[in-house]
Amino acid sequence: MKKQSLSGDALWQRIREEAKAEVAAEPALASFLNLTVLRHDSLSRVLAFHLSGKLSNAVSAVLDARALYEIFMQVLRANPDIIAATEADIVAHYERDPACNALSTPLLYFKGFHALQTHRINHQLWQDGRRTLAYCLQNRMSEVFGVDIHPAAQVGKGIMFDHGTGLVIGETARLGDNISILHGVTLGGSGKESGDRHPKIGNGVMIGANASVLGNITIGDCARIGAGSVVVKDVPPRSTVVGVPAQIVGHDEKMPADLMNQCL
Amino acid sequence: MKKQSLSGDALWQRIREEAKAEVAAEPALASFLNLTVLRHDSLSRVLAFHLSGKLSNAVSAVLDARALYEIFMQVLRANPDIIAATEADIVAHYERDPACNALSTPLLYFKGFHALQTHRINHQLWQDGRRTLAYCLQNRMSEVFGVDIHPAAQVGKGIMFDHGTGLVIGETARLGDNISILHGVTLGGSGKESGDRHPKIGNGVMIGANASVLGNITIGDCARIGAGSVVVKDVPPRSTVVGVPAQIVGHDEKMPADLMNQCL
Amino acid sequence: MKKQSLSGDALWQRIREEAKAEVAAEPALASFLNLTVLRHDSLSRVLAFHLSGKLSNAVSAVLDARALYEIFMQVLRANPDIIAATEADIVAHYERDPACNALSTPLLYFKGFHALQTHRINHQLWQDGRRTLAYCLQNRMSEVFGVDIHPAAQVGKGIMFDHGTGLVIGETARLGDNISILHGVTLGGSGKESGDRHPKIGNGVMIGANASVLGNITIGDCARIGAGSVVVKDVPPRSTVVGVPAQIVGHDEKMPADLMNQCL
Amino acid sequence: MKKQSLSGDALWQRIREEAKAEVAAEPALASFLNLTVLRHDSLSRVLAFHLSGKLSNAVSAVLDARALYEIFMQVLRANPDIIAATEADIVAHYERDPACNALSTPLLYFKGFHALQTHRINHQLWQDGRRTLAYCLQNRMSEVFGVDIHPAAQVGKGIMFDHGTGLVIGETARLGDNISILHGVTLGGSGKESGDRHPKIGNGVMIGANASVLGNITIGDCARIGAGSVVVKDVPPRSTVVGVPAQIVGHDEKMPADLMNQCL
Amino acid sequence: MKKQSLSGDALWQRIREEAKAEVAAEPALASFLNLTVLRHDSLSRVLAFHLSGKLSNAVSAVLDARALYEIFMQVLRANPDIIAATEADIVAHYERDPACNALSTPLLYFKGFHALQTHRINHQLWQDGRRTLAYCLQNRMSEVFGVDIHPAAQVGKGIMFDHGTGLVIGETARLGDNISILHGVTLGGSGKESGDRHPKIGNGVMIGANASVLGNITIGDCARIGAGSVVVKDVPPRSTVVGVPAQIVGHDEKMPADLMNQCL
Amino acid sequence: MKKQSLSGDALWQRIREEAKAEVAAEPALASFLNLTVLRHDSLSRVLAFHLSGKLSNAVSAVLDARALYEIFMQVLRANPDIIAATEADIVAHYERDPACNALSTPLLYFKGFHALQTHRINHQLWQDGRRTLAYCLQNRMSEVFGVDIHPAAQVGKGIMFDHGTGLVIGETARLGDNISILHGVTLGGSGKESGDRHPKIGNGVMIGANASVLGNITIGDCARIGAGSVVVKDVPPRSTVVGVPAQIVGHDEKMPADLMNQCL
Repeated sequence: MKKQSLSGDALWQRIREEAKAEVAAEPALASFLNLTVLRHDSLSRVLAFHLSGKLSNAVSAVLDARALYEIFMQVLRANPDIIAATEADIVAHYERDPACNALSTPLLYFKGFHALQTHRINHQLWQDGRRTLAYCLQNRMSEVFGVDIHPAAQVGKGIMFDHGTGLVIGETARLGDNISILHGVTLGGSGKESGDRHPKIGNGVMIGANASVLGNITIGDCARIGAGSVVVKDVPPRSTVVGVPAQIVGHDEKMPADLMNQCL
Repeated sequence: MKKQSLSGDALWQRIREEAKAEVAAEPALASFLNLTVLRHDSLSRVLAFHLSGKLSNAVSAVLDARALYEIFMQVLRANPDIIAATEADIVAHYERDPACNALSTPLLYFKGFHALQTHRINHQLWQDGRRTLAYCLQNRMSEVFGVDIHPAAQVGKGIMFDHGTGLVIGETARLGDNISILHGVTLGGSGKESGDRHPKIGNGVMIGANASVLGNITIGDCARIGAGSVVVKDVPPRSTVVGVPAQIVGHDEKMPADLMNQCL
Repeated sequence: MKKQSLSGDALWQRIREEAKAEVAAEPALASFLNLTVLRHDSLSRVLAFHLSGKLSNAVSAVLDARALYEIFMQVLRANPDIIAATEADIVAHYERDPACNALSTPLLYFKGFHALQTHRINHQLWQDGRRTLAYCLQNRMSEVFGVDIHPAAQVGKGIMFDHGTGLVIGETARLGDNISILHGVTLGGSGKESGDRHPKIGNGVMIGANASVLGNITIGDCARIGAGSVVVKDVPPRSTVVGVPAQIVGHDEKMPADLMNQCL
Repeated sequence: MKKQSLSGDALWQRIREEAKAEVAAEPALASFLNLTVLRHDSLSRVLAFHLSGKLSNAVSAVLDARALYEIFMQVLRANPDIIAATEADIVAHYERDPACNALSTPLLYFKGFHALQTHRINHQLWQDGRRTLAYCLQNRMSEVFGVDIHPAAQVGKGIMFDHGTGLVIGETARLGDNISILHGVTLGGSGKESGDRHPKIGNGVMIGANASVLGNITIGDCARIGAGSVVVKDVPPRSTVVGVPAQIVGHDEKMPADLMNQCL
Repeated sequence: MKKQSLSGDALWQRIREEAKAEVAAEPALASFLNLTVLRHDSLSRVLAFHLSGKLSNAVSAVLDARALYEIFMQVLRANPDIIAATEADIVAHYERDPACNALSTPLLYFKGFHALQTHRINHQLWQDGRRTLAYCLQNRMSEVFGVDIHPAAQVGKGIMFDHGTGLVIGETARLGDNISILHGVTLGGSGKESGDRHPKIGNGVMIGANASVLGNITIGDCARIGAGSVVVKDVPPRSTVVGVPAQIVGHDEKMPADLMNQCL
Repeated sequence: MKKQSLSGDALWQRIREEAKAEVAAEPALASFLNLTVLRHDSLSRVLAFHLSGKLSNAVSAVLDARALYEIFMQVLRANPDIIAATEADIVAHYERDPACNALSTPLLYFKGFHALQTHRINHQLWQDGRRTLAYCLQNRMSEVFGVDIHPAAQVGKGIMFDHGTGLVIGETARLGDNISILHGVTLGGSGKESGDRHPKIGNGVMIGANASVLGNITIGDCARIGAGSVVVKDVPPRSTVVGVPAQIVGHDEKMPADLMNQCL
């Protein structure tokens, strides 16, 4: 097997080694890699530092980068489950994306990954009752990454948001583990009434580019949704759906999130 | 009824009260809320200040934030219809979006709303003959909000651009009042010839995520276009269309823009 | 004929004249136009200067604008083919987009054009073995323009990426000359295996908004793909395909990239 | 006579003409001159705009440039005497400084002049009871210009603070009209007791570089204080003092502030 | 007695109360005061946050504000003596400077105070062997505050550097407690030889503006040095010296640093 | 002898080696040292890059850092004498300042050195007729470094401006080679008449802190001027002057600029 899973200190050491090798190979990024990775002592710090820089906004003074960095570190320290999920997300990218040859690549350069980690922290802020701050960060995430996730949405671990641009996930959506979602996907609502109104996505599901999944419906474990499909009713586990509106075209998928075949 | 419409000074006072409550509840945003809302004496000033910060660009020096702020205030003072439309847009978000519990939320945090207000000002600059500036602001709007609206496009009031990312509206498009448009929607042209070549959208219409409406066609009042649909011919009033290409699948819609059901 | 092709010094002189006229007509942009266009002595310098400002990031210090400017100029000096392709792209916009009335407009204000030129330089950095820098710039391009192009993707000349938001092009994609691609288009892969897995797009092809073209398939010269279509198998030259999944609905297209008709 | 006094609209028009000539002569500053001078319609706006940029501080977010610009314009509009004094200061520089060949030079490039105008506005803020803001601007003035003037200090018109660095003026100091003060000068207090404890400087006085004038003493009209002197008692009108401590060495000076002879 | 000494939590609470009152009184600074003071839980955090903003430099990327903030907090946590000295410095300003009516005023707005606290941290970095960083911060301190203190210089507590501009303190200088030093003062060396070559300043000393104290000499406790003096030999305790070169002109001073009489 | 002179490539290699050692020793500055020194191929580039960052001003948009960098490189390429003088200045600091233990220290961290190099470039811009730009850079130099040098002033090589703050040098001043000038020194004029009115300073001269040298007088080779002195008439070669006004107190100095004894 070409790639191998890692977590905790072993993962952190691998990321540091990659960053060191990149400093040597690419002087134009030495500054960035030193500041963002090498001077830190944990993955949590790297994540908090990197995201605080991306989400702060000097001109309109929404939030100072130092203040964001502090807030993010407080959340990560108080909730170690978040960084464990982050580690699983890094490995998911490394294993599923053939264009990803290093563990540090999603951490440093994939905006879908950045949006997901911002949401993990933001969801905790929402849980802690800091709703105004959560709306503000949702807005910055949408401006900077083009990814709009309501802070109340629940997301499992081992997730890949590939490319990210245009992804929208609603307030009452719930996602399991080991899911792959391409850019332009909508997990949307079915109308103006409040209450539980967004999709529930099972483990191992793969959703192709620009697909829309709408309403309080259930996408079964290991289901596969073709690119550009519009799904408005439940999808059974291990089935493949395609089209506008989506129809079942196949069964017996084996971990589509891992295989990443978004074709029909 | 859970929510109630407001305008003028009553709306402005409600927004101020919300911002004051948020300052007390969320110290990390006190700076931002004071600077952006509480120190101003009108909704126009808040809008001009907030947008000028988002659209200016320190690094590439396109436009100084102070210069933009002045230009926006000049347009808003000379054209009071704009802020009246803005007020209707705020109320539209508040009434239609179940995730929007405060009048200040779209004003401060929804990039679809920010793009729409930028376009309202930009359309006036275009009308005033400032075409170069209008192109420049269209470009900044597209970079910052992911929303690309030609400055000549005509847009009514009470509009909601939900989420915003990927929305494209062409030069000769014309939109009525009380319309809801989701992210990823295209109101596009039918070819390279100039002249009137973009859709005309009636009052009360709802267009679902990633739908494309193409050519100089008419979408009748209170029509509903399903997510992911591709529409290339006229849609009668109060009908629902769905699919690629879109087919009529229902009639007798009652204000779909308000009901926000983008399912098929 | 309303518009005429230009290249080399004649093109550069026209762009300068346009910028001079804009300085006179729009004082609010005089600063920007002087800094970005008029004080330079070549199109290469303008391009390197303009893109370095957009892609640098003061807050998170990824890359200093001066360092980027130097790197871009080095690439452009060593590879004169790039600026020749840029010139063809400018003319393509000017000829195909009815909303584009000046040669300087795409150069200064169209983010699809900016993303394409960034990719041209980035592809050369990738060829030169600077892979870390190329990933970093791909990330910045995706954040700033909403366009995500793998640095290894091969792209011909005379290309228009209209609007740009949401465009994704994979690692082994190959695009010919004189192609028009709307926003939201995906030239994506067919699964997690590495190797040649992305589409090959012929000369003169036009791909409508939000269409997905998936897998190592061939889109023949002068084919036309309707908006919102999902294409998973080869498309013959000069044919039109539409739908999810896409079906052939017509033949004998004449340069669809030039005619820009994305309707079904 | 080589130079001639100007005020009001005539002065403003001359400054505009100079700026236009500089735009033509120096393309590298065209951006700056357009943004700072040419797009404005009054000297007040130029002053408020130029100072707000210099005194704002993006990184530590003390004050947004747009907020400062508004505050400065409010003060200047409500107190037309300030801009009249500014005009006299511009002319003073033009007439007394042989290295100053244009009226726009002190306005744009002399930090002693910038500090003085900041103080004029800041003194009004102090008078209006905005003491915290006044302390904050005194601090920024000291950081940016190296000039530390207590906001309560009273200053006449036709003043030149040449070079500026190190100048310190205490709370109860009072300066008449047509005074020239070189860099490094202290108008300081005589101890820790509060109350009236700083010098009173008559009209037409000239104070040489690094001189210290200490305590509640009176420097008579048209007196001259040599560079490096330390003055701790009253100086009669039209006399010259020199040394540590300063001794009278001459009489019958004719407008030393105008002649600018700081020698002994 | 009009003012009373404070330290530890009592001082911190007073500073917070003052900042709260200022937020209410001056809306234009509410943002700054919230960000810099009110959201923090200790004086150390306020100091580290405030100085990191002032000393960082977005444009030339010397040091990221977040990185500086972390480094400063590490030094302050590991060396509690520093914040104790800072507290004594705050009280010294409050008691000696008649223009200082609040404990938060030097903390927020006096650049002499900011330079001194930067030096306290920088001296510890030097002691810890981080010499390159110490040189870098000395440089930033000199650019931003106009105060140039070699990181090896030893400084006691209860110190006031009034106004600050132009102050220079050499490598082997040593300052006792309760000292007041005006702007423009030099504690300089006597030649190019290395080794112990700078002044030693006793407790309670007051040094007037622009005075130069040169060479490895001793200024006795409670001595007073007049403004503009040049001192090149030892000064006995409780004596007053004046002139170029300085001569003894008085004896029996009682805490000149506290009385702040810099006259001859 | 503890230190040894260097120039050209040998000096450049030593500076690179020092910077490499510092990157290893101080991770917090690795970013800065890579960006500013290690990625460049000549001392000229380092100088132009470092100064352009310090002198640009994001907020008030006077000059873009990239534009300054280009202008500085153009001047340095066209005038190789400048970098030769820079090299002599570096060595002068290294040999004369006991607190300077590395050749890269003045280059990176001494603002007196930065001001001198800015003036060298600025003087050439003045010679080339770019007077407006020269005034603008003189202003920025004075704001950032606290050093105010008229662009027409002529300065030799092997110069040390120690500490820098408050240094003022007038339009018609002329300085020889191997001069040391402390902070707060004025080489000023004698009145308002234009023409040759500033001092001429011989080779090897040393001028102590806060000394004022006024009028078109000549300071002979290897003369020494005590700190705080005021000099208004010619000083013979190899003599020492002291006081206000300055008197001759000694003769037969041997290279005072090298010995750096500013005592009386």
